[in-house]
Amino acid sequence: MLVHNQPHRTIEPLADGSAVRIIDQTWLPWQFTLIDIDSWQAMAIAIKEMQVRGAPLIGAAAAFGLALGLRESGDDAQLTLVSRQLAETRPTAINLRWALEEMRRVVAPLPAAERADAAWAAACRLADDDVASNRRIAEHGLPLIAAIHQRTGQPVQLLTHCNAGWLATVDWGTALAPIYLAQQHGIPLHVWVDETRPRNQGAALTAWELGAAGIPHTLVADNTGGHLMQHGLVDAVIVGADRVTRRGDVCNKIGTYLKALAARDNQLPFWVALPASTIDWTLDDGIADIPIEERSGSEVSHITGWTGDQAVTVRISPEATPTANYAFDVTPARLVEQLITDRGCFSPSELWRCQKSQ
Amino acid sequence: MLVHNQPHRTIEPLADGSAVRIIDQTWLPWQFTLIDIDSWQAMAIAIKEMQVRGAPLIGAAAAFGLALGLRESGDDAQLTLVSRQLAETRPTAINLRWALEEMRRVVAPLPAAERADAAWAAACRLADDDVASNRRIAEHGLPLIAAIHQRTGQPVQLLTHCNAGWLATVDWGTALAPIYLAQQHGIPLHVWVDETRPRNQGAALTAWELGAAGIPHTLVADNTGGHLMQHGLVDAVIVGADRVTRRGDVCNKIGTYLKALAARDNQLPFWVALPASTIDWTLDDGIADIPIEERSGSEVSHITGWTGDQAVTVRISPEATPTANYAFDVTPARLVEQLITDRGCFSPSELWRCQKSQ
Repeated sequence: MLVHNQPHRTIEPLADGSAVRIIDQTWLPWQFTLIDIDSWQAMAIAIKEMQVRGAPLIGAAAAFGLALGLRESGDDAQLTLVSRQLAETRPTAINLRWALEEMRRVVAPLPAAERADAAWAAACRLADDDVASNRRIAEHGLPLIAAIHQRTGQPVQLLTHCNAGWLATVDWGTALAPIYLAQQHGIPLHVWVDETRPRNQGAALTAWELGAAGIPHTLVADNTGGHLMQHGLVDAVIVGADRVTRRGDVCNKIGTYLKALAARDNQLPFWVALPASTIDWTLDDGIADIPIEERSGSEVSHITGWTGDQAVTVRISPEATPTANYAFDVTPARLVEQLITDRGCFSPSELWRCQKSQ
Repeated sequence: MLVHNQPHRTIEPLADGSAVRIIDQTWLPWQFTLIDIDSWQAMAIAIKEMQVRGAPLIGAAAAFGLALGLRESGDDAQLTLVSRQLAETRPTAINLRWALEEMRRVVAPLPAAERADAAWAAACRLADDDVASNRRIAEHGLPLIAAIHQRTGQPVQLLTHCNAGWLATVDWGTALAPIYLAQQHGIPLHVWVDETRPRNQGAALTAWELGAAGIPHTLVADNTGGHLMQHGLVDAVIVGADRVTRRGDVCNKIGTYLKALAARDNQLPFWVALPASTIDWTLDDGIADIPIEERSGSEVSHITGWTGDQAVTVRISPEATPTANYAFDVTPARLVEQLITDRGCFSPSELWRCQKSQ
């Protein structure tokens, strides 16, 4: 997508192959900062500290991280060590493990000396494939948005939670991909953007993305969605996913489940946009079986914001207050109307068709 | 309640009658600041700027504000002007209008010269009555909490949203009143405290109150409650109310409705604690008929926190991002299990008995 009229991806190999350039998303929305990652250790930190975040993007980041790691040594021990370390940076995301598995499948059969180059090429392919996949998500989601506009004749009012835009992927995004394509097709839109506490990815990233793209939007506290739906101000909810089970339970940013409940209570469609690689065909019951990452309580007690000339971290609760920080929740399949994937749209009960269409 | 081992109410007339002392709650949790209010204009600002907040407390504050206003002049024009100005400080709260109506009923029949003293005495009575009323809410709510402990034998896990503690009233609180009484009865408890964006009353006030009282609690982002309930970590939800309709629709802090939906989806009781004066017997459909206050969008885009030596306001969204800030939502009566009032506990379908028991 364009930033200051320059095309950007969130992760791009340098032309000379010496490093991978990423957008340091911890500085958004205050500064647009590019940094070059030239070691697997730096990539592990970038993933863990959420300089890169979003399920599809951290998959690509892990792939490049592994490629960088194999430059140190191509032997089996290094392959295992680097894969394991990268996999442990974010315990919930399945794309990360999927990407590392894809990489291993490509490089493991090769002689150690050939692995680094092959891994680099495979990581580049994986990034390109993500862009193509998200573009297909956009195409499959477009008719759903268009149908609302045809029915109402009004700007389509969508609500989204967290950031599942191009910043969460290599390009295009997942939940925002159909929105970008709808804009290109001239369908009038307005997006309600959940702030997404505690890390504020909606306030910081989704608002920034939509603003850069010129898509009308309004930032609201996470508490607001139910009220908006009760008053007819939302036509549909669209979110991304970090992991989806074979029956269609959706693990996504904490708070997603509450919006799905509100959508159901107000007879509104709840859509989840995702690449099929996000689906974990080995799991059935998402609430029982998906491990939920617990992050530092300081993300709840403290907030980083901009004073006008610098980013400052302030404490918002009493010093002694205990905090808990569950990063994700699981929305049961019964609350999901459509899963918008790169292979087409599926209701949860027909998600098995998505596996067949591989 | 005790603060630094001194008993305090949130609003107290000075012994010499010259002014009313309030806790400036905009400084909590960083500083415990008392300020003296000696004019109706200062009280109007204190209510509007939320130095005093919480439905019962702003009722008492408005009563003292009117008493201060009648010292300038006791004539009808002043009575009408001050009442109207105070009523307009917060459009949603019914207690505010109820308190002003009570005051008018007392002073209107009197000669102008006698109104100021009578109003002062009436405001003092109204504050004392609030304390007594909240104590009765505590007594009526206690058996509900005790019953959970008897059934499970475990610490009772409660979730609360916003601040409906003693800081929201003259003393004791509404939603937290039964919790304080349960603690005094030796019932083990743990309270999940919703941060309550955008004004963070949970993080700033409820966490501070519970910490001061030594009640185990954990601060969580507003997005978290559904996940906690799915995993059996909540026994009941208890919140306050700003206005309740005769059929039991509950207007309370934005986001309350989402927690009520999650409680219902997980078969958990959702309780609302309130003085009967919060019930608007003229209204039926809360979603259609209760006006929802829209506050400044800067409360969404900016957060005030503590750097270690000062309070600093930081921006968390891009400068150009539009924001919306609805202060309340309405939870339909069908999601409410019990209304815990000073007159007893009522299911929404039996709320009419509460009016009869006046």
